Amino acid sequence: MADSMLPAMTKHDLPTPALLLDLDRFESNLRKMAAHLRERGLGFRPHAKTHKCLEVARAQIAAGACGICTAKLSEAEVFAAGGIRGLLITTAIIGRQKIERALRLAAAAPDTIFVVDDDNNAQELSDAAQAGKLDLNIAIDLYVGNRTGVAPGGPAVDLAQKLAKLPRLHFQGLQAYVGYASHTAPFAKRCEVSREAVSKAIETRRLLERAGFAVPIVSGGSTGTYNIDSEIQGITEMQPGSFIFMDVEYSRIGGRDGETYSDFSRALTVVATVVSRPEPHKAIVDAGIKSFSTDKGLLPECRSVGGVVYAFAGDEHGRLDLSQAERDVKLGDRLEFVVPHCDPTVNLYDQIHGLRGEKVEAVWKIAARGMSQ
Amino acid sequence: MADSMLPAMTKHDLPTPALLLDLDRFESNLRKMAAHLRERGLGFRPHAKTHKCLEVARAQIAAGACGICTAKLSEAEVFAAGGIRGLLITTAIIGRQKIERALRLAAAAPDTIFVVDDDNNAQELSDAAQAGKLDLNIAIDLYVGNRTGVAPGGPAVDLAQKLAKLPRLHFQGLQAYVGYASHTAPFAKRCEVSREAVSKAIETRRLLERAGFAVPIVSGGSTGTYNIDSEIQGITEMQPGSFIFMDVEYSRIGGRDGETYSDFSRALTVVATVVSRPEPHKAIVDAGIKSFSTDKGLLPECRSVGGVVYAFAGDEHGRLDLSQAERDVKLGDRLEFVVPHCDPTVNLYDQIHGLRGEKVEAVWKIAARGMSQ
Repeated sequence: MADSMLPAMTKHDLPTPALLLDLDRFESNLRKMAAHLRERGLGFRPHAKTHKCLEVARAQIAAGACGICTAKLSEAEVFAAGGIRGLLITTAIIGRQKIERALRLAAAAPDTIFVVDDDNNAQELSDAAQAGKLDLNIAIDLYVGNRTGVAPGGPAVDLAQKLAKLPRLHFQGLQAYVGYASHTAPFAKRCEVSREAVSKAIETRRLLERAGFAVPIVSGGSTGTYNIDSEIQGITEMQPGSFIFMDVEYSRIGGRDGETYSDFSRALTVVATVVSRPEPHKAIVDAGIKSFSTDKGLLPECRSVGGVVYAFAGDEHGRLDLSQAERDVKLGDRLEFVVPHCDPTVNLYDQIHGLRGEKVEAVWKIAARGMSQ
Repeated sequence: MADSMLPAMTKHDLPTPALLLDLDRFESNLRKMAAHLRERGLGFRPHAKTHKCLEVARAQIAAGACGICTAKLSEAEVFAAGGIRGLLITTAIIGRQKIERALRLAAAAPDTIFVVDDDNNAQELSDAAQAGKLDLNIAIDLYVGNRTGVAPGGPAVDLAQKLAKLPRLHFQGLQAYVGYASHTAPFAKRCEVSREAVSKAIETRRLLERAGFAVPIVSGGSTGTYNIDSEIQGITEMQPGSFIFMDVEYSRIGGRDGETYSDFSRALTVVATVVSRPEPHKAIVDAGIKSFSTDKGLLPECRSVGGVVYAFAGDEHGRLDLSQAERDVKLGDRLEFVVPHCDPTVNLYDQIHGLRGEKVEAVWKIAARGMSQ
């Protein structure tokens, strides 16, 4: 829906459950991160797995991002078709069919960077690139975050040397994402964990340079470590995702200056409606497991009425404990909840409703929703 | 995609992660439940919140279902537009806008049944029905399952008497869904819990009949209690959902004859690809929090290789512990996983791939995916 086509609509008009984005907060979060990185001379390539939304990606690029990261090829295809460039796909492209798709993507968006952590996969990419007469930009994915990647140090240098012999593959640098660091609390511990992991990437960079490789890109960092990793010499760009929206999980990681992480504002909520009042201190809302992420046992936090405690009550419902609520809650009341974990929550919805105050200023399609392939 | 348009495709051709349905098992599950209820003279109104898919609903009706349940109005709209009739919407319709939509639905699908648990909501429905010159079928939602509903007994009879005075509303009976019973283990405890809760609905039915009301419908039951509730005199129809697919959660509730609940076959899996092998006993697959439900702490179970243990490794990845694996797992291997909880997992995907053996026989759109409104 084009924004200009929207009738005058407020958040009170939206059928619930619905995903709401406070645009003032979103824009402030975006400006803050972009300025932080710009001031340090670092590239800004935010992770689009958080939002899966073309309009958000465009706003990020307008704010100074050099491109975006996507977790999966199918996400990248959506963004490329929407005109976004500067793509870095953070998961390796495995299997003949996906490699064929990756080549089509590279033809349309030649500056796309693909990651590899395996010799044979690199060989297959090179073979396909030669057959298709296309060049592919490659970053080596380093195993510094307990997820994917080749071991830093010698094994990574070996892989770079193999890449150098493979036609049509162009080594761009390193991906060093430390997933487990991003939610480590408190701040001092997070610094320690992230610095230790990232130091392996920096050492690998040194080894590569000593072996004669240019390493223009070292990409990493997250919303939790943006102000840690950005102080480490040798990182060239950062790929934070959640900072635009924020969630309950990130609120709890502890900030640099105290217990609360409040560097970015909680801009994303889900609005739900009370659909049953079965007991005096209980209310049932129309948002459950299919409307909020449930990983890590975190719960939605009610923003509309203090003291309301949410519990999941099945796939479609939540149960509110009102015994400590600051005011009564009636059938039909609409309540907003900060989401437990933003990325998988956004992935449940088809649209983000951008609010300016109470007015719905924009309805953005979550165009890559469900694109996990 | 029309089935006849499908090229010869096997499950090995599908980009991963993908949702797979073994059609032999699915059809067997469907026949078994339909026969169980038919033999007892009970109506079969399976819950479509599990599948959100028109083709599955059509198969259920072909197997003898009198209609389907949906959890939400927006789901029902999708099924009604697809020609499905006999809809029972199991959550109350709250608020002016949704009531207007409910009236449009009733105009298109006049046999739809709506539930109420509140006087004022009933009044609003009646007012709107009068204004629209339409009749609405109403079931009273009973609070027997710790979620929504009016208290059984006197309060329910009072509500029926109020309904009787409201023009255009036609009382059809009771909804008595006992959510918490469905996964109570073991079987003996499940019997006790379900019978105690359902007895309140049966007693309410008696009170209503004594007060002069016909009660043609008493709807309840689940995949966990289908062979418990179906033996209770006074239940007229059952609304099980998960039995068509099954999942890890239902496997663990205990069967009538022992520790394993194997009344229905595990027909639904997610196929994922190994995208990294960072350590000898670790493999990373391309399916994580966005590809499997995460509620209740249950994990996907690997069906392809014995001894493989899955752990979530973020939104897009899973980490496999191979230390006890029956065989090695290589980069590019495709592994199938039984899903932790079927309903919210299906809601993450756009398509169900129906398999006959290894062949993809059908690709069904999950047309009501994300319809939580």
